[in-house]
Amino acid sequence: MNRAGGVELQLPIIQPAELWQESGRWDVYGPEMYRLRDRHGRDFCLGPTHEELITDLFSQEVNSYRQLPLLLYQIHNKYRDERRPRFGLLRGREFIMKDLYSFDMDEDGLEISYRKMYDAYNKIFSRCSLDFRAVEADSGAIGGDVSHEFMVMADTGEDQITFCSACDYAANMEKTPCHLTGEAKSSEEERPLELAATPEACTVQDVASYLQVNTDQILKSLFYNVDGKIVVVLVRGDRSVNETKVLNYLGANMLDTADPHEMLNNYGIPMGFAGPVGLREKTKVTILGDLEVEHLYNTVAGANKPGYHYINVNPRRDYHVDHYGDFRTAIEGDPCPHCGAPLQVQHGIEVGHIFKLGTKYSEAMSATILNENGKEIPVVMGCYGIGVTRTMAAAVEQSHDQDGIIWPAAISPFDVVIMAVNQRDQAQAGFALDLYQQLETAGIDVLYDDRQERPGVKFKDADLIGYPCRVVIGKKAIAEGLVEIKWRATGELVFKEKDRVTAYLQEKLAAMKCSKQ
Amino acid sequence: MNRAGGVELQLPIIQPAELWQESGRWDVYGPEMYRLRDRHGRDFCLGPTHEELITDLFSQEVNSYRQLPLLLYQIHNKYRDERRPRFGLLRGREFIMKDLYSFDMDEDGLEISYRKMYDAYNKIFSRCSLDFRAVEADSGAIGGDVSHEFMVMADTGEDQITFCSACDYAANMEKTPCHLTGEAKSSEEERPLELAATPEACTVQDVASYLQVNTDQILKSLFYNVDGKIVVVLVRGDRSVNETKVLNYLGANMLDTADPHEMLNNYGIPMGFAGPVGLREKTKVTILGDLEVEHLYNTVAGANKPGYHYINVNPRRDYHVDHYGDFRTAIEGDPCPHCGAPLQVQHGIEVGHIFKLGTKYSEAMSATILNENGKEIPVVMGCYGIGVTRTMAAAVEQSHDQDGIIWPAAISPFDVVIMAVNQRDQAQAGFALDLYQQLETAGIDVLYDDRQERPGVKFKDADLIGYPCRVVIGKKAIAEGLVEIKWRATGELVFKEKDRVTAYLQEKLAAMKCSKQ
Repeated sequence: MNRAGGVELQLPIIQPAELWQESGRWDVYGPEMYRLRDRHGRDFCLGPTHEELITDLFSQEVNSYRQLPLLLYQIHNKYRDERRPRFGLLRGREFIMKDLYSFDMDEDGLEISYRKMYDAYNKIFSRCSLDFRAVEADSGAIGGDVSHEFMVMADTGEDQITFCSACDYAANMEKTPCHLTGEAKSSEEERPLELAATPEACTVQDVASYLQVNTDQILKSLFYNVDGKIVVVLVRGDRSVNETKVLNYLGANMLDTADPHEMLNNYGIPMGFAGPVGLREKTKVTILGDLEVEHLYNTVAGANKPGYHYINVNPRRDYHVDHYGDFRTAIEGDPCPHCGAPLQVQHGIEVGHIFKLGTKYSEAMSATILNENGKEIPVVMGCYGIGVTRTMAAAVEQSHDQDGIIWPAAISPFDVVIMAVNQRDQAQAGFALDLYQQLETAGIDVLYDDRQERPGVKFKDADLIGYPCRVVIGKKAIAEGLVEIKWRATGELVFKEKDRVTAYLQEKLAAMKCSKQ
Repeated sequence: MNRAGGVELQLPIIQPAELWQESGRWDVYGPEMYRLRDRHGRDFCLGPTHEELITDLFSQEVNSYRQLPLLLYQIHNKYRDERRPRFGLLRGREFIMKDLYSFDMDEDGLEISYRKMYDAYNKIFSRCSLDFRAVEADSGAIGGDVSHEFMVMADTGEDQITFCSACDYAANMEKTPCHLTGEAKSSEEERPLELAATPEACTVQDVASYLQVNTDQILKSLFYNVDGKIVVVLVRGDRSVNETKVLNYLGANMLDTADPHEMLNNYGIPMGFAGPVGLREKTKVTILGDLEVEHLYNTVAGANKPGYHYINVNPRRDYHVDHYGDFRTAIEGDPCPHCGAPLQVQHGIEVGHIFKLGTKYSEAMSATILNENGKEIPVVMGCYGIGVTRTMAAAVEQSHDQDGIIWPAAISPFDVVIMAVNQRDQAQAGFALDLYQQLETAGIDVLYDDRQERPGVKFKDADLIGYPCRVVIGKKAIAEGLVEIKWRATGELVFKEKDRVTAYLQEKLAAMKCSKQ
């Protein structure tokens, strides 16, 4: 961050509600934000992110284009009251983030700052020895038009990313556009609508089996509660609704599956047998259709009557749709939006996310600067986050074996562990302590495991914890002056004379920390 | 902390109520603790301190005397909802603390850990170039019997400390014991009690003027609300009640001045005219008397009747006291509790506080270990805090001049600021950048002030911010290769050849950081 021109600071974790009210996010942030009151009854939150605070700071301290570009960052705790915290450090409610905010005079400046951060993030995650990809991403609650996520490839990852087998396209699956593919069947003959009994068949799979059709001949109707209003999304039976696309199309803040009891009580619609026929007339709800749905003829859909579906349902003739658009989630094999080659899909862990915010916050919070012509304009912002604790967890996901963690040297809590084979042997213990102090003085991050445990226990613990390097003082050290050094990642075992150990470790560790291992 | 055997970790800031309920502090901590609920309605607090968390961690992870002593510490934010946050970093509601917790098998072990920390704290504050004193202190809400505060001497300090002019006694004023001094006047003749009109005289000073007596001939009655009950404390008119001593004597948690309206409405007692005569009979409240009061004869006291005082009030004959004890605050000139020489008083800023906790938390939270005989015993604890942000503020209080801060080198945010006299001059700017990179590579914490401002502005800012060392690249550097180096604390100005600058700065800064400046 420093090398890219960043200046480090530390912002408060407790933030006054007033700033969030100014940006408009106090009311829309939702239950992920921890809120509290102080002894005087004033509202505060625990910062889930810091756009409001940094924008306020900027507006108080900076006023001229001559002070730009400005890159400010901190490394500190963030708080998000996750519905389901899980997987240890991968998704906690309290976690460490590195967040940098860029301030530029115009879009060109932002492009430069954004590129600097994009490059810096690539360097950082490479240095962490991670197998990762930068992918196009949705901007979510942070806002802005352009954003990229840095994804560590891991089967345990909660995100899915699509990437092209032919070109360099890569995106978060929720961001991947889907186009209409295959031949449009608009010429198909429209058969008469029929009501069919489908007792107990209330999933797409059940209905397909019961009526002996493929799932792609079924029209799936999904009901959502979007900012308090019901919205129905129609997709082909074998597709999934992409909730992010629905949210973005509607410009909404919160989307949740609609409550089945409410749907039945308020609208008389039995979930499992819901469908678009007569739905608009009956309920006045908004109905969105995926692009594919517009070309789906003689399909099967719920009849809004328990135990019944319609067959030969056709668009326009049988039901109303307010808007057709791209509302489905891409899948493996879909055509690349850039070149058309089939997309591949992998799971990933989001460890970084960078955003072009533009003037979203600076306009809302009056963070203006005087430009070269003395005109007051809103500053153009970007923000750039790394999940520090999550990056550690992701590194462990990728770098371990049956014995434990294999820390990438650049982020290992300690570079070296040193131990005597027999801690009760004064010669060995003295030798180890002396070497420990030498290493420490030389700036090597070293831990002395001076527990009086059997060597086997200490070796096992060293492998489990995953120090890049293990230094052992045994009989050979006392008799011949040779120190045993073992590297965790490669298993390489070498012996060095005591007075050569420091230089050897310094050189080797520096090399490991500066390049991808 | 590492050198003393400490192991660094990081504990959560958000802490579950359950742990505080286990220790018994959830209900007694009072409004200084920030409390909040998560989305599932569970209670949490923002850690004002971490005894509960660390004791819980210990009880889960450690079970044998062989794993002791154990010293665990963190450097992280703490939260206290102060009634009056003030003086910037000196008393904020969010601040950085270094807190270490020691775990030992017995009191002897605790004594060793406590001494280690005491010595380490002395070294740390000396290294910070602070004028400070370690003083005996009250343990307050943290608990335990023995504690010391590290006080930075400063007239702006909120604490007062007493220290002996003859021996090495030093204590927080609230902890300083007061003994009975002077001749006891028990032989004085008791004159008859009289009621005297004292219209509008409701302060000690007013009454003394009105009745033409000294303030030390008046008996002052102070009413407190202690954990919800009214307690009256009697002291001589020229003395102050020491609320900490009252709290400790009563073993109570919270003490506040009693509400005058409540006193009048519930007990018929008009504040300003309150006194002990008939008080016990009338109100049943607890009455405490300072040691001096027991020997105060023919004194003046409020008559519990608006506009009236009694004169010739005498102990036992005229009023009841539940307990006589040391309830007053020491003042300058009081005898030293160790040697009797007169005490001196100075203001100070508390930057560190160490406590012998004993088994207060380990017993409440079942943090036990097996001792050498296989017997389960509660672990013996200590805790040791440094207010990191407050230490910075205290250093600034002590170390500044009319131009700004003079940072002690050990805690300066940057060691060195480097700048070109004319940032637009490419030769100067290039020279500065090159030297900046050299210094940075050598591990010197250096800031490059590359703003395009006049040199006067940059010099003024450098003095204001207070970098220990200022390096200026001007014409002399370009023409003769000589770099100007100025030391903030001494004003010393030297010129060095470019390739000698790094070594010179390294050596000088290392010396400044290792010893008291």
